[in-house]
Amino acid sequence: MTTVKEIRLKSRPAGLPTRDNFEVATATLRDPGPGEVQVKNLWMTVDPYMRGRMNDTKNYVPPFPLGQTLDGGAIGEITASKDPNFKEGDLVQSSFGWREGFTAPSASVEKLDAGGLPPQAYLGVAGMPGLTAYTGLLRIAALKDGDVVFVSGAAGAVGSVVCQIAKAQGRRVIGSAGGPEKVAYLQSIGVDHAINYKAETDLSAAVLEGAPDGIDVFFDNVGGSHLEAALDAARSFARFAVCGMISTYNATAPSPGPSNLRQLIGKNIRMEGFIVTHHLDLLPRFHEEMSGWVREGKVTSRETVFEGIDNAPDAFIGLFSGENTGKMLVKLA
Amino acid sequence: MTTVKEIRLKSRPAGLPTRDNFEVATATLRDPGPGEVQVKNLWMTVDPYMRGRMNDTKNYVPPFPLGQTLDGGAIGEITASKDPNFKEGDLVQSSFGWREGFTAPSASVEKLDAGGLPPQAYLGVAGMPGLTAYTGLLRIAALKDGDVVFVSGAAGAVGSVVCQIAKAQGRRVIGSAGGPEKVAYLQSIGVDHAINYKAETDLSAAVLEGAPDGIDVFFDNVGGSHLEAALDAARSFARFAVCGMISTYNATAPSPGPSNLRQLIGKNIRMEGFIVTHHLDLLPRFHEEMSGWVREGKVTSRETVFEGIDNAPDAFIGLFSGENTGKMLVKLA
Repeated sequence: MTTVKEIRLKSRPAGLPTRDNFEVATATLRDPGPGEVQVKNLWMTVDPYMRGRMNDTKNYVPPFPLGQTLDGGAIGEITASKDPNFKEGDLVQSSFGWREGFTAPSASVEKLDAGGLPPQAYLGVAGMPGLTAYTGLLRIAALKDGDVVFVSGAAGAVGSVVCQIAKAQGRRVIGSAGGPEKVAYLQSIGVDHAINYKAETDLSAAVLEGAPDGIDVFFDNVGGSHLEAALDAARSFARFAVCGMISTYNATAPSPGPSNLRQLIGKNIRMEGFIVTHHLDLLPRFHEEMSGWVREGKVTSRETVFEGIDNAPDAFIGLFSGENTGKMLVKLA
Repeated sequence: MTTVKEIRLKSRPAGLPTRDNFEVATATLRDPGPGEVQVKNLWMTVDPYMRGRMNDTKNYVPPFPLGQTLDGGAIGEITASKDPNFKEGDLVQSSFGWREGFTAPSASVEKLDAGGLPPQAYLGVAGMPGLTAYTGLLRIAALKDGDVVFVSGAAGAVGSVVCQIAKAQGRRVIGSAGGPEKVAYLQSIGVDHAINYKAETDLSAAVLEGAPDGIDVFFDNVGGSHLEAALDAARSFARFAVCGMISTYNATAPSPGPSNLRQLIGKNIRMEGFIVTHHLDLLPRFHEEMSGWVREGKVTSRETVFEGIDNAPDAFIGLFSGENTGKMLVKLA
């Protein structure tokens, strides 16, 4: 394989991204030099945070440059190696997603021991989304006995793991997602009260129906009216782990925050945003606990798969209309 | 003294309170029975949080009942006692403010040893506002070495103490208040960069001018555009102690929250509301440290005083137009 297709950022999206913002290009891979490997990608991930990188604004990660290949998590296998530590067929993880393959220094890829899980699980439950769920729920929100947990975007890659970890620890879980199929999925993973937010006019009331005495923990992937409902439903000393605000990522004008933020004071609420890369010290504990939960069937993996690099932009765009249940992935080979 | 004047809540304010919401009434005090004391109030406090209690809505403290005497902190002296532990002339603290005097069980008042401070300091620097400043800055925001601190409502009863504690600990302080007199006051207590927010069109820029590398701690008394500016100016891992949102207390329609709340995520910001009564365990440490700072002149007390019970409603209403620099008090005798 010396010729691969890859996806470049052609123009910066205004609002919701469209196919026109992306370009499918062809690249020729050089043969690996000393200390280099060549990789054929099997899977790549698309994640909501990538939307922020498509704007030309300062963020916690630099913007994607125009005209260049996008990047992101990928799982591949070695097809050629000039490093004795890697051999053909080895599974590797890298940040060289959005392309069918690449040649790179071996130090920029990491050998993957899938430990009995399908390799793409390392882009989901066993990867960054899983660690994000684990960090937000257990460290940021500091889940404890008796807590009632509300999760927005509960059927997504992160939210579905949050729900399952909370259930594995015996907590009551209220989850919100868009549409009856997702509600059925949430019920199948043990969520106690699943809300189809698209069918609700009063989200606060819908949360309180599932948590009549209020919620102690809110894991937010959505922002906007979900955050407002969580403030209304919060009990004293509630903790909010703010992981994402996907409802605002494509806004072309500033979206006002919740009008009931003042409740932070009277209810002594702690609200904390976080980026998972600051919590990599949790990785060993996460891998140990998560593999236990997966073995015991307490955490299962659900995926929505698009096939082929040409469809990667559609997979990404689909995140914002909720086309995915569980992890959104692109299968490249 | 058996006849006293007191202030009753005549009607619930819609928006900014007016004199018509209050009624000056006369009450006759009974002679103290066994275990009771009679008290002449010398000082009473008016505080922004009382506005919330004038609405008929659930809050962290119950609403004031219509037609009844308001309450709040007061300092008085014993005029008659049927409890051997209290004698005429003893200074006492109570929650029986908004009245010239009262008869009550001695267990409902607390003897005050002013320790060399003027007694009204126990309604300000040495009282709840001081403890609020201390708790928010040191426990909630967990002030640490090198932090740059931004305080909104910095010339108020709480804000002015926050600024002075932060300066006593050697921190750089940016303070915002309304008008040139307050800016001069902030400079006189050592604030490094004082902002007259009424003269600024871009509050974020004004904060960044005083903190070019951003802020680490935000102590919020105001909410609204101040919170928005703090989010813009925050550095990674900033901590926001949310003490008050006076800009929203008289809103008659929901006031939208900041449109840049999403920055909580990328900057890993922790934002925590608090009510001081949950932190009374800090009182001994607070009294010890605060009396030290006051003795050393590191914390000084500034008061705006209205005279006489008839003017108590005006003192209260004046809080919302910023008529006070430092603690707003009513002198009753």
